[in-house]
Amino acid sequence: MDEKELFKGYRGAALEALKQYNAYIWSDVELTTDESTFIGLILPRSEQQDEFHIVIKLRTGYNIGVRASKVRDIKINGRKEAHYKIPEKEFPYSPKMPRVMLFGTGGTIASRLDYRTGAVIPAFSPGELYGSVPELADICNLETVKLYGVFSENMGPEQWIGTAKAIAAEIEKGVDGIVIGHGTDTMHHTAAILSFMIQDSPVPIVMVGSQRSSDRPSSDAALNLIHSVKTAAESDIAEVMVCMFGPTSDMYGILHRGTRVRKMHSSYRSTFRTIGDIPLATVNNQSIKPLRSDYKKRRNDRNFKLVPYFDDNVAIVYYYPAMHPDIFDSLIERGYKGIVIAGTGLGHVNKPVYPALKRAQEAGVAVYMTVQTLWGYAQMYVYDTGRDLMELGVVPLANMLPEVAFMKLGWALGQTHELDKVKEIMLTPVAGEMTEREPSNGYLIFQGGIPEVEEFISTIKK
Amino acid sequence: MDEKELFKGYRGAALEALKQYNAYIWSDVELTTDESTFIGLILPRSEQQDEFHIVIKLRTGYNIGVRASKVRDIKINGRKEAHYKIPEKEFPYSPKMPRVMLFGTGGTIASRLDYRTGAVIPAFSPGELYGSVPELADICNLETVKLYGVFSENMGPEQWIGTAKAIAAEIEKGVDGIVIGHGTDTMHHTAAILSFMIQDSPVPIVMVGSQRSSDRPSSDAALNLIHSVKTAAESDIAEVMVCMFGPTSDMYGILHRGTRVRKMHSSYRSTFRTIGDIPLATVNNQSIKPLRSDYKKRRNDRNFKLVPYFDDNVAIVYYYPAMHPDIFDSLIERGYKGIVIAGTGLGHVNKPVYPALKRAQEAGVAVYMTVQTLWGYAQMYVYDTGRDLMELGVVPLANMLPEVAFMKLGWALGQTHELDKVKEIMLTPVAGEMTEREPSNGYLIFQGGIPEVEEFISTIKK
Repeated sequence: MDEKELFKGYRGAALEALKQYNAYIWSDVELTTDESTFIGLILPRSEQQDEFHIVIKLRTGYNIGVRASKVRDIKINGRKEAHYKIPEKEFPYSPKMPRVMLFGTGGTIASRLDYRTGAVIPAFSPGELYGSVPELADICNLETVKLYGVFSENMGPEQWIGTAKAIAAEIEKGVDGIVIGHGTDTMHHTAAILSFMIQDSPVPIVMVGSQRSSDRPSSDAALNLIHSVKTAAESDIAEVMVCMFGPTSDMYGILHRGTRVRKMHSSYRSTFRTIGDIPLATVNNQSIKPLRSDYKKRRNDRNFKLVPYFDDNVAIVYYYPAMHPDIFDSLIERGYKGIVIAGTGLGHVNKPVYPALKRAQEAGVAVYMTVQTLWGYAQMYVYDTGRDLMELGVVPLANMLPEVAFMKLGWALGQTHELDKVKEIMLTPVAGEMTEREPSNGYLIFQGGIPEVEEFISTIKK
Repeated sequence: MDEKELFKGYRGAALEALKQYNAYIWSDVELTTDESTFIGLILPRSEQQDEFHIVIKLRTGYNIGVRASKVRDIKINGRKEAHYKIPEKEFPYSPKMPRVMLFGTGGTIASRLDYRTGAVIPAFSPGELYGSVPELADICNLETVKLYGVFSENMGPEQWIGTAKAIAAEIEKGVDGIVIGHGTDTMHHTAAILSFMIQDSPVPIVMVGSQRSSDRPSSDAALNLIHSVKTAAESDIAEVMVCMFGPTSDMYGILHRGTRVRKMHSSYRSTFRTIGDIPLATVNNQSIKPLRSDYKKRRNDRNFKLVPYFDDNVAIVYYYPAMHPDIFDSLIERGYKGIVIAGTGLGHVNKPVYPALKRAQEAGVAVYMTVQTLWGYAQMYVYDTGRDLMELGVVPLANMLPEVAFMKLGWALGQTHELDKVKEIMLTPVAGEMTEREPSNGYLIFQGGIPEVEEFISTIKK
């Protein structure tokens, strides 16, 4: 193997450190720093990554980056090249099966594909996916197109608009369902904007990702992929949805409406949760079971509305006590056109910021109110605080989630800067982003603190 | 009755409208606007309130403000003065009972007391509380002091420091427990800062409020008050706690650790939830049942640490995709000393803001990372994104909640502006604000979408 292969992706300080201790990629090492010792495999890196860290796959399956300057010793215990190469087989074509398009944007679902650490051989073509998850061939004829390869926190208007247009083109070409592989961090943001940009789709549009990469034993990648592809191919629900891991066991996935879902845990697989509503359906490898009937149904026509606009001069202001008015003044001065406040309680902020909100109103900035409790409604008629804020032009958005309100406001301002028209757009529900009431079973409950439930959960977990 | 009494609190346009239709306070009316008709009682208002709205108590118990200029007709159906006057009785003194101090700061718990609409006769003295909630006399010898009368969104450093000092003085005087009546909107913020300002208290410090005022049939005010006073008087747990309504039934209240609790529903009574951990205990009128054993215990000594400082040049930046770097630049230019980011996923922001974070680092601004998923940890070693941010001086705060991190950073900067010392303070747990791991039953589950749980919940609700 030539040196480039031996130290794949390493340069600068990290490369020096490896050479010093005769370590190279796939070395099974015991690496010591002043603080700790790490045992695991040295992973290759991709070209774009920094030159300061050595990345080790720990025995737990987690990858960790160790700063080269902190390395005090590396003991070599062997070499174990991981077999990440996917056996590629031709994806079988079956004329009776529905046609599904999988768009890649980046993120962990592409974890044998495009994995962030660079450790994993990409696997994204239909043939590679078939080699990796053969169940897919029992569901559909799969095609794949990589639209982007960005971490989801870097998704922005360019990618949202590009994805919406790619979806539109596929619908017109007659696809039966669409799957979008996406990093999980901002998957709910993208689900919201696609819900606004592609209206009345005749086919399911299913977003999917994974919280744990497919080289870890507890990976949710394959299961989520099977569930999402099944939904795209077979579901009667023609909405923009997020398809992710359901409960803590792997019994089923959940289909969440794109405008009512939020990432609620930084690392759990069951991170996506429908907020203030009930999910659309559960899905397993046998069937898709709707949990409600008020969804938009699959159609055979090719009619839909594409509204691919976004003005990113919009901000979320997350209220905290003792907030100074300069938070709003800065946004006004810098030319922001829209502000979504996530207020406390029913939609409140403190009195000292009122004058700045008045200045926002005078400057023609569109200001909307959501609640940072996440569950429940902005109800600004109840207290004087709310009524005062409405006098200042702040418009409550019922139970629209702060992130969804942000995406909708950028989308509305992308279409018009006339405040009356923006308001009309904001207050007209497009895809379930505001609902008349919260179902009684839409609130979260906790395992902890409710002994009866805790006991019950422990029985169904077995 | 003189005119001032007849139109108590009304002035300007609202007073004119009432006079026009011969309506006055306690009139039972049918009020018509262009859009709606409202049936209910016209409530008196307090002097501080605006002159534009007529406030009506609807038959549902909710109060609504109707803009005077929109009134088209008011039909008078009678007059029904509500009997809000509390029968005042002397609070019985029993030498064997513990002594509890109830501090008032404002908010709905004082709803027969200090109710926002001005509709309700204040009831806050021990005698009035005894007349209203006689159970209190079976628990303790109650004393009351009104510290403030502000809506909780207007609480700030002055009130936090003043409350901490008042608590300290009471502990020194030998009180057995303290209850703090507080509006619910920012109760968790105040609970967090009191957890830092009063360390190692020998007695329980219990925050309480109510989501529904005591003139509504579903009010949680009396129950929460009984639970909190019982906790202050009898509990072995000597920590800063939030005592609020537990499940959707009124079986029990929950005691939440002051640094791990958050308001999670804008209107439900069961709004406060322990996040990423299990609550300290449940409480009903019979007993207090700890759910864990690792709490600080009640002591007979009077030793504790008072650290009453706060620098409010601190902000929360709640990350959203496509964020511009000017969000951070504005804070740097305006002299903010600390920034708490609520990042996506494990603690991420997009690349375009990196240069601004570099400028923050150069300007000596303390920047800390929390997660907007609320559950889970900021883990910035996992991806390059996180490692890059740490290079820029951004410090991850494990599972500290964004609001708690904000309060702690203001508190740390109130003590020192030396960044190394600030960091030491931030990373040293004071009161459970960071924990080593999340218990497996610390995550939320939903009634909706988990058919087995939903069915079970419906059985325990009966």
